[in-house]
Amino acid sequence: MTKSILHAIFLCLAHISMAQPLAAIQSESEPLVLQSLGSFYLGGDKQFQNQTELGGFSSEGHVTVNQMYVNYMVPQHRTDSMSFVFIHGMNLSGKTWETTPDGRMGWNEYFVRKGYPVYMVDQVGAGRSGFNQKYYNLVREEQLAAKNQETFQRISDENTWINFRFGLKNQQPVKEAKYPIGAVGEFSKQSIPFALFGLADPNPNYLYLSALAAELKHTVLVSHSQSGRFPIESALLNPKGIKAMVMLEPGGTGADFTDEQLSALATIPLLVVFGDYLENETGIPGHSWKNYHDGWGDFVQRLNAAGGKATLIYLPNLGIHGNSHMLMQDKNNQQVADIIIDWIKDNE
Amino acid sequence: MTKSILHAIFLCLAHISMAQPLAAIQSESEPLVLQSLGSFYLGGDKQFQNQTELGGFSSEGHVTVNQMYVNYMVPQHRTDSMSFVFIHGMNLSGKTWETTPDGRMGWNEYFVRKGYPVYMVDQVGAGRSGFNQKYYNLVREEQLAAKNQETFQRISDENTWINFRFGLKNQQPVKEAKYPIGAVGEFSKQSIPFALFGLADPNPNYLYLSALAAELKHTVLVSHSQSGRFPIESALLNPKGIKAMVMLEPGGTGADFTDEQLSALATIPLLVVFGDYLENETGIPGHSWKNYHDGWGDFVQRLNAAGGKATLIYLPNLGIHGNSHMLMQDKNNQQVADIIIDWIKDNE
Repeated sequence: MTKSILHAIFLCLAHISMAQPLAAIQSESEPLVLQSLGSFYLGGDKQFQNQTELGGFSSEGHVTVNQMYVNYMVPQHRTDSMSFVFIHGMNLSGKTWETTPDGRMGWNEYFVRKGYPVYMVDQVGAGRSGFNQKYYNLVREEQLAAKNQETFQRISDENTWINFRFGLKNQQPVKEAKYPIGAVGEFSKQSIPFALFGLADPNPNYLYLSALAAELKHTVLVSHSQSGRFPIESALLNPKGIKAMVMLEPGGTGADFTDEQLSALATIPLLVVFGDYLENETGIPGHSWKNYHDGWGDFVQRLNAAGGKATLIYLPNLGIHGNSHMLMQDKNNQQVADIIIDWIKDNE
Repeated sequence: MTKSILHAIFLCLAHISMAQPLAAIQSESEPLVLQSLGSFYLGGDKQFQNQTELGGFSSEGHVTVNQMYVNYMVPQHRTDSMSFVFIHGMNLSGKTWETTPDGRMGWNEYFVRKGYPVYMVDQVGAGRSGFNQKYYNLVREEQLAAKNQETFQRISDENTWINFRFGLKNQQPVKEAKYPIGAVGEFSKQSIPFALFGLADPNPNYLYLSALAAELKHTVLVSHSQSGRFPIESALLNPKGIKAMVMLEPGGTGADFTDEQLSALATIPLLVVFGDYLENETGIPGHSWKNYHDGWGDFVQRLNAAGGKATLIYLPNLGIHGNSHMLMQDKNNQQVADIIIDWIKDNE
């Protein structure tokens, strides 16, 4: 390839892909003052792997699998002892809670500016947490049948439009759309392969989240979509340190939790939040946000009947219309954050 | 599985895996004051994929591939107009530059506290940048021969000990070891599958890094190990905005760059830094840090002969002994950072 062709590709790329995000990113007028920031890994199991399993470069030996990456910020001035742990959904990573695709402040910074430490994880199997590559390498060398490697799931842009309710149809925004529609192309970049269907039982995510909450104390576990049930599962393992559970548009219905489990959960406040247009077709058979809303509505009733403090907020009932599945990135994401913080304060 | 077994597993995990990292993490006495912090993606290509290629959950449509995740911090008070872009090596992610495995401040925070904006990328194919999963999903469904899926590379803990020169042998630290030997187990968790052997030509990482530098201006590109040559390749695409190139223990030798290319590079200062014990056996045939040191030493001479400003620092020549391959995590990582900053100041 000649230099001039390379240069033309470069200019094209620079123009199309670079200009938008950097130029569009906004800064707040007040500085962000942190007591600390950093990252660490939780958990992880040692596993011996041979050279083929490692991919052929390294000699055989142990590697760590099932670890969870966490990054965090602690504000210099804390409002109280409460901390937030944010858990992303399918196909995504901790990026979910950072700068929005149209360049506004993410929830990570917003909650810190409100005076709360924030911890953001990459689920085991996603992003910087990695996944166990050995099955793929064995399949490649024909030492293992292909069906032994798990699929990597992704969601197409066209499906995202209807499934995440940016629009009732692809490229046709819903009325009063709260998602920043001009930045849907940027959101597409956040979608990365998701290897979570082959995890151990019990799911190591639950173990790490409950242990993190116990260590931080006064922790609010905030889940989204596929990670919806994670706060509940973590609390069932160890409720110590979990101050509240917040589930943003959780998948599933919660109908499989037993009465005994609900009794154990009743001491911890639970908030479920859903956006608008839940009746929209998701394009995926058997997958319905309306069904999940109704199922978790039943769960909230059961939990309250068991002595709990639980609420399901359907945002249109508060007069707030047009919210998508990505509530934390919607144009009114600060309004939604305030609703959550206020609800916790009112129910502690 | 009964509740009591689960609880026992939990206690065990909590004890073994959780206590170390959180308790060991240190905070600085002065707050970190940021003008801004955030993240964005660079580049990315749209590709149509069918339902099998997407993993079976989503309906067919377009996804983004070849995007690059970047997160950044800008200090409230900048020393001057210079910014740093940090590029990790094989098997790793942007985590490389964050909190060290033994809980000390990472280079990301150190450089910000010195007054410089920092940008950290996950290479295309690593961490939050994701990779193209379609080949793996096609192989799984036996629609593609297994050899069409790239291997995922990882490095075993045992190989890391000698290859990264924590020790001359596994579990036997080198004399005056600068790596925090007690935290080698934590470092193991940073190693995640690496899918970089199937990238397009030209490597999209080069395009994005050169475009980022052009947009930021006065940018120092800092590479490590497998990404060693990235600053040079980026500068050859577009030198605009690249103030200096810093290569930490680069792999390869640079012997393949032509005299014409060296002439084009000669306006940009180049610093190469190597640690100690380069003669150590790497455990991988044909892979020798001593050879890379010598090769890049020749490159530095050629660049200077072409009118450039280039230096190779072999730390033991400065009386600094025991540094590992992970210079940015070694116990004297701030000393190494200061050497780099001072060299740039002396050569601008």
